[in-house]
Amino acid sequence: MNIKAVGYYIGHVLRLIAVMMLPALLIAFFGREEGTVLAFALSMGITMAAGCLMFLLKRPGEGGVRPVEGFITVSLSWILISLFGALPFYISGQIPRFIDCFFETVSGFTTTGATILTNIEGLSRSLLYWRSFTHWIGGMGVLVFMLAIVPLSKGNGESMHLLRAESPGPAVGKLTAKMSSSTRVLYLIYVAMTAVLVILLLLGGMPLFDSIVNAFATAGTGGFAIKNASIAAYPSHYLQTVIAIGMVLFGVNFNVYYFILIGKGVQALKGDEFRAYIGIIAASTLLIAVNIMPIYNSFGESLHQSFFQVSSIITTTGFVTTDFDKWPELSRMIIVALMIIGASAGSTGGGVKIARVVMLFKSLKVEVLRAVRPRRVETICMDGKRIDASTMGGVYGYFAAFAAICGASMLVLSLDNFDFTTTVTGVLTCIGNVGPGLSMVGPSGNFSAMSDLSKIVLSLDMLFGRLEIFPLILLFSPRVWRRKG
Amino acid sequence: MNIKAVGYYIGHVLRLIAVMMLPALLIAFFGREEGTVLAFALSMGITMAAGCLMFLLKRPGEGGVRPVEGFITVSLSWILISLFGALPFYISGQIPRFIDCFFETVSGFTTTGATILTNIEGLSRSLLYWRSFTHWIGGMGVLVFMLAIVPLSKGNGESMHLLRAESPGPAVGKLTAKMSSSTRVLYLIYVAMTAVLVILLLLGGMPLFDSIVNAFATAGTGGFAIKNASIAAYPSHYLQTVIAIGMVLFGVNFNVYYFILIGKGVQALKGDEFRAYIGIIAASTLLIAVNIMPIYNSFGESLHQSFFQVSSIITTTGFVTTDFDKWPELSRMIIVALMIIGASAGSTGGGVKIARVVMLFKSLKVEVLRAVRPRRVETICMDGKRIDASTMGGVYGYFAAFAAICGASMLVLSLDNFDFTTTVTGVLTCIGNVGPGLSMVGPSGNFSAMSDLSKIVLSLDMLFGRLEIFPLILLFSPRVWRRKG
Repeated sequence: MNIKAVGYYIGHVLRLIAVMMLPALLIAFFGREEGTVLAFALSMGITMAAGCLMFLLKRPGEGGVRPVEGFITVSLSWILISLFGALPFYISGQIPRFIDCFFETVSGFTTTGATILTNIEGLSRSLLYWRSFTHWIGGMGVLVFMLAIVPLSKGNGESMHLLRAESPGPAVGKLTAKMSSSTRVLYLIYVAMTAVLVILLLLGGMPLFDSIVNAFATAGTGGFAIKNASIAAYPSHYLQTVIAIGMVLFGVNFNVYYFILIGKGVQALKGDEFRAYIGIIAASTLLIAVNIMPIYNSFGESLHQSFFQVSSIITTTGFVTTDFDKWPELSRMIIVALMIIGASAGSTGGGVKIARVVMLFKSLKVEVLRAVRPRRVETICMDGKRIDASTMGGVYGYFAAFAAICGASMLVLSLDNFDFTTTVTGVLTCIGNVGPGLSMVGPSGNFSAMSDLSKIVLSLDMLFGRLEIFPLILLFSPRVWRRKG
Repeated sequence: MNIKAVGYYIGHVLRLIAVMMLPALLIAFFGREEGTVLAFALSMGITMAAGCLMFLLKRPGEGGVRPVEGFITVSLSWILISLFGALPFYISGQIPRFIDCFFETVSGFTTTGATILTNIEGLSRSLLYWRSFTHWIGGMGVLVFMLAIVPLSKGNGESMHLLRAESPGPAVGKLTAKMSSSTRVLYLIYVAMTAVLVILLLLGGMPLFDSIVNAFATAGTGGFAIKNASIAAYPSHYLQTVIAIGMVLFGVNFNVYYFILIGKGVQALKGDEFRAYIGIIAASTLLIAVNIMPIYNSFGESLHQSFFQVSSIITTTGFVTTDFDKWPELSRMIIVALMIIGASAGSTGGGVKIARVVMLFKSLKVEVLRAVRPRRVETICMDGKRIDASTMGGVYGYFAAFAAICGASMLVLSLDNFDFTTTVTGVLTCIGNVGPGLSMVGPSGNFSAMSDLSKIVLSLDMLFGRLEIFPLILLFSPRVWRRKG
């Protein structure tokens, strides 16, 4: 383990987070929120100091970052930014207990949107801004952002290992020859799409502050709302539909947009994952719309409600315009299924990712055929390209780890003695980075009644979900730390 | 597809089932149950006639049974024996609707033990006997039994394909050079262990009839009780403990007993699966015993209740001595976990099997290591032997299919609009061949309120669980039927 290299990159990340607190500080300052001005100033100072301390470690030489350092850097970075990012909530005193501040910040960075707040509107505007901004940062990834703006390493190799460890989905391809150009292009698309979303919300009459923070939560597919009623607080169908379509778009693999930009759009839209994503959204929306029709006035209204909730859950955003916990059982069950499936690989969304689900079904077909004809070699293809055994092994390993972590977390959560539905969906919604579940943690509920142990487990689940499990497992693996650099 | 070969073997199976109805007919006759005498006589006649009709097909030539015919024979056999096995219930009129008779018989043969009966004690003794006897037949397998007694094929190959398709677990090894000797040895062990169990129950003062049917349900790890209160109707701790230990023993891979018989016992008991099985039972029993202590009078009593329920659920029997649905959430969650895990491969128990869970965890470790060192080749070993990629692929495929079938079944079941817990555990308990779930289908409930559609789906789930999914998928695959023989 090359601890120097890990420390060097984490130092950079912390300094970046400190700088990112600046807009919230300015909002606090100009909004004359005296308590939070100090809170943000102090938090910035502490985070910057910690970052600089680590940064004193010398820059690592060539080849200092292998896969293992990539994984460890990413997982440690995410834990540390959640700890330091929780400081403004804690120092301001607006969330009294540090474990709650930590849960809320992890939920922000991992773009989960699960909250322990019982009255969201009671928070200062600067804190509401910071809370939603963590979604936007976490959506594309902290290290991705850092590597997009700072040319930290000379070769492609180092960045690649860091990006691989932070990027969602089974495999990261290079879009351009140089890794840092790729990430810069993707980040520019992200910024541009967010800006368009802000403008569209403003056009619908949403106040500027609300437009910006809701755009952050939509772009990052996070789901922290600044109103207790979430998006139901904006009854305009135009606004709700803009956000619904926005969520769907941010749940698409960003490579698709890149290919559209360079004129290969048709090819990109024909991809296996994209077609499955759109198909699942369409089928779920229709099924739920029919199922919930008796509750709403017309098919139009039930279709609107269905599309918003489907879009919100499959992209793992977690915004709501209605309490889907009160829907009939079929719709609730579809919502839970979407929670697990999640959005596309390479998007800002969570879940196990459509690509993995598609690959699993394809491999299932191959296994069934192999049972009949043991000697014939069948191959699994995505977008016409053959998937090699090692990628497929990674997919299987991911599902195995996912199931194991879900099971273990549910056992720990059940110590709180809440009902079965709360325990099961509470874990699924956190590891899927969604936000709301069913029953007590449903759209009208929150995670405040959970014990500290459950909050810690669910925070870990959110990190497992966002970092796709392996980096965090390696962090806790003694074998990794024992290895010499 | 060699339809002749399939028909030939199925004809044999049906004739065998007809013969197996004889004891129930005798019980009806000597018990002077007039209605059921006719019911069993008619059922036997119809089943025998159907079997003979199929048997008229010529005996297939050498090499007539390839893997695909093995799978199709097994899955069709199981569907047909459930249809014909349901006749006594239907003709006697004691279960008025045929779908309920079918559900009950599938539940019997698959050793699930889920019931649609609201008053079990209202059934005639001959029907109660037949119901429990289906467990005993289904536990070791119908084709296994047939091949053990009838020398149907000259070579080992044909039997192997039939046995592979019916036997639980990731792989079937040959115990002796000749396949039919292996199965004969295993069946003898099964008969001997059942006989010992009957004697032990008689020694505890249980009536002869009860001892025999309860031994059938224990040996097949089925769980149909003949009392509404299940095993709680026998308050003797001796009897309950005999059954609990019995269930644990029938949940062990029968190869272990074979190895003990030939003097290789120490080696067999050191196997990965056996150790994991005993470890999970011990850990779950202790955890639950501590968790439920406040409910029962003493630690001794809670340990007794805990051990019985753990043994019953992990072996997927489904007998109960207490309503575990009223236990604290941690204990309920452990019960659900055990439902999924199930018993050992090559036992009479269901679930995904301990061996597969162990292999999944081992492969997970390998995948984590591979994320760090992509170039190094790691191998997965069970009992010191290397697991090849194709076996591992089968395990992954099984889990993928298991998850997909569970998800789809839960969606269909949710149309009934029961609560989340009922829907989820209802499917898990049926596909795991356990019997009771939580909430409405908990130990004090039953499946009578389910719609016909749900009963059909759950019947399929039970068959999927017992036949380990692939044979039944192939049955529904048009590609298989299109192939020429």
